[in-house]
Amino acid sequence: LRLRRAAVRSAVAIEKEVPEAERPDTFLRSSDDSSHSSSVRSRFEKMIRAAQDEVCAAIEAADGGGRFQEDVWSRPGGGGGISRVLQDGGVWEKAGVNVSVVYGMMPPEAYRAAKGVKDSSEKAGPVPFFAAGISSVLHPKNPFAPTLHFNYRYFETDAPKDAPGAPRQWWFGGGTDLTPAYIFEEDVKHFHEVQKQACDKFDPSFYPRFKKWCDDYFFIPHRGERRGLGGIFFDDLNDYDQEMLLGFATECAKSVVPAYIPIIERRKDTPFTEHNKAWQQLRRGRYVEFNLVYDRGTTFGLKTGGRIESILVSLPLTARWEYDHQPEEGSEEWKLLDACVSPKEWI
Amino acid sequence: LRLRRAAVRSAVAIEKEVPEAERPDTFLRSSDDSSHSSSVRSRFEKMIRAAQDEVCAAIEAADGGGRFQEDVWSRPGGGGGISRVLQDGGVWEKAGVNVSVVYGMMPPEAYRAAKGVKDSSEKAGPVPFFAAGISSVLHPKNPFAPTLHFNYRYFETDAPKDAPGAPRQWWFGGGTDLTPAYIFEEDVKHFHEVQKQACDKFDPSFYPRFKKWCDDYFFIPHRGERRGLGGIFFDDLNDYDQEMLLGFATECAKSVVPAYIPIIERRKDTPFTEHNKAWQQLRRGRYVEFNLVYDRGTTFGLKTGGRIESILVSLPLTARWEYDHQPEEGSEEWKLLDACVSPKEWI
Repeated sequence: LRLRRAAVRSAVAIEKEVPEAERPDTFLRSSDDSSHSSSVRSRFEKMIRAAQDEVCAAIEAADGGGRFQEDVWSRPGGGGGISRVLQDGGVWEKAGVNVSVVYGMMPPEAYRAAKGVKDSSEKAGPVPFFAAGISSVLHPKNPFAPTLHFNYRYFETDAPKDAPGAPRQWWFGGGTDLTPAYIFEEDVKHFHEVQKQACDKFDPSFYPRFKKWCDDYFFIPHRGERRGLGGIFFDDLNDYDQEMLLGFATECAKSVVPAYIPIIERRKDTPFTEHNKAWQQLRRGRYVEFNLVYDRGTTFGLKTGGRIESILVSLPLTARWEYDHQPEEGSEEWKLLDACVSPKEWI
Repeated sequence: LRLRRAAVRSAVAIEKEVPEAERPDTFLRSSDDSSHSSSVRSRFEKMIRAAQDEVCAAIEAADGGGRFQEDVWSRPGGGGGISRVLQDGGVWEKAGVNVSVVYGMMPPEAYRAAKGVKDSSEKAGPVPFFAAGISSVLHPKNPFAPTLHFNYRYFETDAPKDAPGAPRQWWFGGGTDLTPAYIFEEDVKHFHEVQKQACDKFDPSFYPRFKKWCDDYFFIPHRGERRGLGGIFFDDLNDYDQEMLLGFATECAKSVVPAYIPIIERRKDTPFTEHNKAWQQLRRGRYVEFNLVYDRGTTFGLKTGGRIESILVSLPLTARWEYDHQPEEGSEEWKLLDACVSPKEWI
């Protein structure tokens, strides 16, 4: 059954992933001329794998009982990933932390658009690319403990075949954002402060710019609201020094644990009612709406045959849709919704 | 808060709907030259409103306790609808039955594509259209009682202004399909037999053709499976006599109660386990994936500012996503999944 489903998918998609018994030292192609340990590709892969280990260890320690289940996979032509999921733990309902390395071909229009080349006389043809990233969504059980999402990715095209020494195109993207069902000012402030500290180490313009970018990106147009209370988000970033941006992405990934775990420790055991739980479930419904309808990574992944279980691990274990639900004006639920409709400055 | 959210939506969308205290006799514009009672527009509106009354009465009778809550709404420029939702009833978790009448403008490319006109020399400009439909999703609580969806719609463009007597373009679309979490052969056979009887009264080719169309339409590419066990589906149907197709759509709508209610009566009180409920919730997750990612009505509605609560009433009250869930080979859950992967002939 599984094979039949895979066959249908792969007919329209990229190479099917293959399960691996062990984690390889690297998912980089050995034929890849940028696989040497000093390359940005290689250092970025090391960084995201270290971040995966660090976040998973912190989650398991805070969860108290749950353990991550690991799936390692590769693609015959190169690339692969490590998916780790903790389900129905002591604190988290579902926690997914994935890293992946992908080799693919991009349509020439996409390449030209990204590069900013207007000249259509340039040779057209698919452009080989490399992409690596870490992606994580952490959904706790307690309705007073917030969901966290973070994702950091690096993208690079191959050097043109006819000009091996020519510069590659590259971009960084990513962000970390918080989605609570209830607002605790001290939590949201703390979260944004850690993001700002990470940003300020590199450029004073980063936090205000990436905070706004985050509020804009996680907007659900059909609801007129954001899915949560934001954080930072950036994409296609290449107009800074490459080493500086690698350092910035590394700093952001290292900030995940100090930004999130103290909030979880404060909220994980807060007593709650059925009413609180139902509201959390409704907000989880909004999370599903955003991810399935608008999130670029998800919709791109679904349409191009990425590893479905890794992509959809971002969805909560449970979600709820009530017809025409309106929180009572002035209630705690209303305050959260108000902040999702009109983003605030938290620091 | 509600107004602010609406303002954001309407900036990119069609006129905002306004709540109405009472059901009007018709949602047709009084200035509409096709509003007379013998027009297809008028007779189709009467038919879907009668079908809404009939289905809601049958659902309330079978539910035993739940009552539909009704919202009537209109748009300043004409058109409107009646949304009815029964939530957390005795038998149904969520049952929505909506009718709507919409006046809008379609881009000339869409009109030409639908009409099959290749000649681009034809005057380009938005084409006024009329659309009316009934749409319903019924999600029961008991995991052995299936979800039902049906939708019947009529679409017509206005006569060209410079040739008032010229023929209008028109289409019918719709279908009825069944989504159980467990297969009871007698239920699925009965359901498909009622669909076939309705089809056979009009054209012997309808059932086989619309059965396949249904299997193709409700396909979830990223899963390699259908959301359920099908039924009938057709769209853009205009290559038959208009009266015949109005009669066919009417017959299909009248077949909803005899196709569905006997199944519900048989299954609504079947004892079930937590395992059965969790599987139903996982299948509800697939329902959400199909509706938010692929369903044309939903994705079109979300992007053009339709009445969000009416559009998303199709989503179940609760849904579930487990990482990499695989039913045990040969189990009842596996049999359902197998039939969703490889559609069967039920009669």
